Amino acid sequence: MPSLEKGLALGLIDHFSLDLDEVLDAADIVVIGAPPKATAQLLTEVIDRAAHCGSPIVTDMASIKGFIVDSVKRTYPRFIPGHPIAGSEHSGVEAAKADLFQGREVILTPLPDSDERALLAVEEMWVAAGARITHMSVADHDAALAASSHAPHMLAYALTAMLDDHDLLPMKHGGGALRDMTRIAASDPVMWRDIALTNREALLDAMDALAVEHSRLRELIDAGDGEGMEQYFMRCRQLRRAHDNILNPFIPSGEVPG
Amino acid sequence: MPSLEKGLALGLIDHFSLDLDEVLDAADIVVIGAPPKATAQLLTEVIDRAAHCGSPIVTDMASIKGFIVDSVKRTYPRFIPGHPIAGSEHSGVEAAKADLFQGREVILTPLPDSDERALLAVEEMWVAAGARITHMSVADHDAALAASSHAPHMLAYALTAMLDDHDLLPMKHGGGALRDMTRIAASDPVMWRDIALTNREALLDAMDALAVEHSRLRELIDAGDGEGMEQYFMRCRQLRRAHDNILNPFIPSGEVPG
Repeated sequence: MPSLEKGLALGLIDHFSLDLDEVLDAADIVVIGAPPKATAQLLTEVIDRAAHCGSPIVTDMASIKGFIVDSVKRTYPRFIPGHPIAGSEHSGVEAAKADLFQGREVILTPLPDSDERALLAVEEMWVAAGARITHMSVADHDAALAASSHAPHMLAYALTAMLDDHDLLPMKHGGGALRDMTRIAASDPVMWRDIALTNREALLDAMDALAVEHSRLRELIDAGDGEGMEQYFMRCRQLRRAHDNILNPFIPSGEVPG
Repeated sequence: MPSLEKGLALGLIDHFSLDLDEVLDAADIVVIGAPPKATAQLLTEVIDRAAHCGSPIVTDMASIKGFIVDSVKRTYPRFIPGHPIAGSEHSGVEAAKADLFQGREVILTPLPDSDERALLAVEEMWVAAGARITHMSVADHDAALAASSHAPHMLAYALTAMLDDHDLLPMKHGGGALRDMTRIAASDPVMWRDIALTNREALLDAMDALAVEHSRLRELIDAGDGEGMEQYFMRCRQLRRAHDNILNPFIPSGEVPG
């Protein structure tokens, strides 16, 4: 309980209770923020009781949605699955940041039976925190995040392991590029084990797509195709600059979102 | 000539001359700083004349050594090939930084016939700029840099291209991890084309080693081997933290060294 008391002392929360029924009865919206496996357990428990305890709106923040939605056996139209693309490598009540969601994307994946008013309330909550809302299907969310976040993490892990296995210990001779490309290999091993276990198929698809692209580039290099490489690199430079300038102007570097 | 005059006006250089023989006659050490292909051309021209023009010590800064050394046909014992692991995505005289080499590694790859006193003089020059010196063979340098810098750049390019080809345009939904992993995909296309052309074999070896490691990690994920993944990720976290804390404490993030 020390972290709840600390939150109270810091003025970050107004009340807390360890009595789940009491919490559900009092709440308008229940937001579950925990790693994927813990989120699935907590959601199951909350939704089992919610209908009899004030019927609050329920949402979550887990970075995987298929596993979460599949884990919750009971139908509850006031459950709106969500995923804010924000976070850092820090955790705990002292890492709280009022502007954590400012300008960031929150993906909501409403289910076929989701209540329209519950969806609107969850959207309003996120907009009040400064976020912008995207709707996606559960499957699209998991595939997009496998490609944009989960597979890049696996790449950083594989690169780090390769460098350590190399006879010449090339990590000793790396500069800023290497530093960037391996930063997220310091991410939490248990969290990433759970993500790889719970978003397995979409992650494997993204890793395969990446392997195909990597071997396409390898062919250009093997063939000494300078013109092909220059076009390839030019296209990537344009894509990366568009990403910086237009799509995600709000995201500072050096973060490790979940 | 405007950039040389600007250098003079800014007090960055004391003199300049466009007469190569005059420069060689006056110089103690000639340092060639240019992309790999231009470095090879300039070195050939300088070394062809150096023996008849004051015999200055000659060194270079190119990020590939085998191609450079092979390009210089004439033997000149006072040529010491070098590569400072430092730089940024900026170029030109106004991007000059007095502390650019402070705490950074400079790899020298002396040749079998290299003059010992010339080597010492080049080392003293780099130490005066704040750098630390490593000696490597030409082949080891190119293999280590292929793994620590060139292959990671190819990875960033391949990831960026994969994300753009993906139906769901996942780059729109990326956070800080994606930003880090694609930053160097904005690097200069011509420079990286030249690096891939001139360090082709070592780069292909590093890309192959990475593909093997990536597919090893893929197998753990495919098998749902949670314990294996956790060990793998834990090892990477330790390696990455050791890299941050011990080996390269000087390198700021967000740089794109050549």
